[in-house]
Amino acid sequence: MRLVAQPSVSARKEGIEECAVLVEKMLQEIGAKTKMLRLEGAAPLVYGEIKSTKSNKTVLFYNHYDVQPEEPLALWKSPPFKPEIRDGVIYGRGAADDKGELVSRLKLIESYMKVNGEPPCNVKFCFEGEEEVGSVHLHDYVSKNHDLFKADGVFWEFGETDLEGRPYMSLGMKGMIYLELIVKSLGADQHSSYAAVLPSASWRMVRLLNTIKDADERILIPGWYDAVENLTDEELELINQYVFDEKEYLASHAAEAFVAGLSGDQVKKALVQRPTANIAGIWAGYMGPGSKTVLPMEIHCKMDFRLVPQQDPDDLMKKLHAHLEKNGFGDVEVKVESMEPAARTNSKDPLVKAAMRAGQEIYGKKPNVEVSAAGTGPLYIFTRGYGASAISIGVSSSDCGMHAPNEKLRLDYLQKGMLWVGQSIEYFVS
Amino acid sequence: MRLVAQPSVSARKEGIEECAVLVEKMLQEIGAKTKMLRLEGAAPLVYGEIKSTKSNKTVLFYNHYDVQPEEPLALWKSPPFKPEIRDGVIYGRGAADDKGELVSRLKLIESYMKVNGEPPCNVKFCFEGEEEVGSVHLHDYVSKNHDLFKADGVFWEFGETDLEGRPYMSLGMKGMIYLELIVKSLGADQHSSYAAVLPSASWRMVRLLNTIKDADERILIPGWYDAVENLTDEELELINQYVFDEKEYLASHAAEAFVAGLSGDQVKKALVQRPTANIAGIWAGYMGPGSKTVLPMEIHCKMDFRLVPQQDPDDLMKKLHAHLEKNGFGDVEVKVESMEPAARTNSKDPLVKAAMRAGQEIYGKKPNVEVSAAGTGPLYIFTRGYGASAISIGVSSSDCGMHAPNEKLRLDYLQKGMLWVGQSIEYFVS
Repeated sequence: MRLVAQPSVSARKEGIEECAVLVEKMLQEIGAKTKMLRLEGAAPLVYGEIKSTKSNKTVLFYNHYDVQPEEPLALWKSPPFKPEIRDGVIYGRGAADDKGELVSRLKLIESYMKVNGEPPCNVKFCFEGEEEVGSVHLHDYVSKNHDLFKADGVFWEFGETDLEGRPYMSLGMKGMIYLELIVKSLGADQHSSYAAVLPSASWRMVRLLNTIKDADERILIPGWYDAVENLTDEELELINQYVFDEKEYLASHAAEAFVAGLSGDQVKKALVQRPTANIAGIWAGYMGPGSKTVLPMEIHCKMDFRLVPQQDPDDLMKKLHAHLEKNGFGDVEVKVESMEPAARTNSKDPLVKAAMRAGQEIYGKKPNVEVSAAGTGPLYIFTRGYGASAISIGVSSSDCGMHAPNEKLRLDYLQKGMLWVGQSIEYFVS
Repeated sequence: MRLVAQPSVSARKEGIEECAVLVEKMLQEIGAKTKMLRLEGAAPLVYGEIKSTKSNKTVLFYNHYDVQPEEPLALWKSPPFKPEIRDGVIYGRGAADDKGELVSRLKLIESYMKVNGEPPCNVKFCFEGEEEVGSVHLHDYVSKNHDLFKADGVFWEFGETDLEGRPYMSLGMKGMIYLELIVKSLGADQHSSYAAVLPSASWRMVRLLNTIKDADERILIPGWYDAVENLTDEELELINQYVFDEKEYLASHAAEAFVAGLSGDQVKKALVQRPTANIAGIWAGYMGPGSKTVLPMEIHCKMDFRLVPQQDPDDLMKKLHAHLEKNGFGDVEVKVESMEPAARTNSKDPLVKAAMRAGQEIYGKKPNVEVSAAGTGPLYIFTRGYGASAISIGVSSSDCGMHAPNEKLRLDYLQKGMLWVGQSIEYFVS
């Protein structure tokens, strides 16, 4: 509640410095040695560590102290930055994402300090302040302080337990290339009667896009799938066991069917292992009401390509450029916004086994394991070049209202989640 | 100058009523019987007629008294609605388009009245006040007053002479279907990681559009070209003689080449007789700077299809719907904004021959004949069901700055253009 009461909206750069100082103080209060890392124009990265004589292994907690904007204010039952407890639930912006999770890591280690005088292994804390705006400086922070972030196991920021008490864990994240394609055909928009003789950027974009993906949603860029590995038997088993309600999922998105005729385990496999080519935005010409007869001079298309492990963004960009060249689109502008590789921990990894065993014991239910999240995050920053394992588990509930009004943290879930993380560490380092 | 001084900006509904009253007065001043036609919510249509004993033929002048907005004001050398003459040129909004042309018709007939006591044939005037906003009520006005607009020959609103003194005439206009396609796939925008399993409206639109036109710019909707007739030998001859600078045209539009490899007479033919399928606007998802990872719930595409004579918009819409149905897009929303057929006067028509002969005599140069304009206008309203011939010739210069600041009318071009129209009428009715 102390941390939630300190606003830290990175989108508005509001309260970030104050929150970083508070987080550093809270780290020091549990006995951590801290460093406030700074880069020009970036939110401070709060680093902390506590040594242990019990194990030479090191665990790193990645969390963030910034939060989403609180709007729409009118929908909050209590003020977003004046947290309050109602019926065993803390309400406030960041109560779950990610201040509740962050504090759960602090309080867990503080408990070890109080009971045993030290944690079960060396512990590092990496708390950034720009997660909600794309972790834009995280890669720089880590690569400039490489040794500081060395660890054997990484606990990623977040994890949910559903309302039936089934805990979820995730073993990785997809990578991503985000880019914008720009086709130009004329010096200015023209009267559309000229479309009889002048080239159309829009039709050219349609033809270009049509070379990217076929009607079965398969990406047509030669070599795009070359590095994609088959899922292992263990991964397939985890996917098979993963609890996922297809009908409810479709209904909640008002979709009639899954893409490309997917059903059953194919859907779950696609979320884990299907590279995507998504049109995130496209625009040209007249977008207002009624009609305007214009031949637009240019068209823009924003795309995100989700990547799976072993797909190398640099290699894929070369393949995309070669594909465009070969199909007569070599002159089309390709503006890359960001590239990051996927990261995934092997399902047989000791950290995974430890967390699965601990989860079963604490919750009395088999954890629902996401072999990979469908989304993207900078997980690779802490695993590539470190050989670290990483999982994402935590203390939130599936109804925590992340990014929404009345975000909440259930105190019983907080307690169980802390036990789960602690027990996972103990199994991992023993 | 009197008419230009009365603002009449239809886009802002400014001065329309006052201008209609002034135009009716000017018609009465030359001896016309007038009617002020009104429809609810529409600008008045000013109708006038003068009978003649010299011929039982009737000529109708279609013009408009509304003008384009005058912005950007800063670029005008004299105020747009305070016309002034500098070096034999009238400057002001509407000086050419279309008040100069309108007055040239009035003054021509006034001259006949003064010299001969009557015009060389029956004359009708149809002056509307909504041309610059799409002539939205013209069809209603004419169909509700069918007999009033009966004529043998129609002079359309406008015509230019180039700076080498070569007069231009146009024999028709293309038709148009303007519509919007809307593909929806989800109830709301989603995080783009879901693109691995949820359907994308944008990709579906790409596939739909790809069934509309091929890489050679041929429309693929079955039967789309069925009604398209071959150009006649006379039309081909006029096209061949039409003066058109390909290189200058490309350079002025900053285009590298014509569409579909067109060159030479093919370009001129396409402007006249090629049905088009143009993407006037397309939009979905995120269009701002940087990146947003979204799977858009829907995509919109505005299209205009230009039509040539004999292509029936209703028939084509049936073909489009059948095509969509057959290709699995039967559920896609098709919102029709407007439909109008093409209109074109046969190049052997007496009115065409009369105007060509008169033009050659007045200007000492063969008129440059556009078999059809590439653009669309409601010409068919006055020809379909009337059997009337129609041409567009006038008094403007090719540098008249239509729709632009410092719009102008050259007084020497005004004089010659009036002679051309008068002589054309005389040859036509004799």
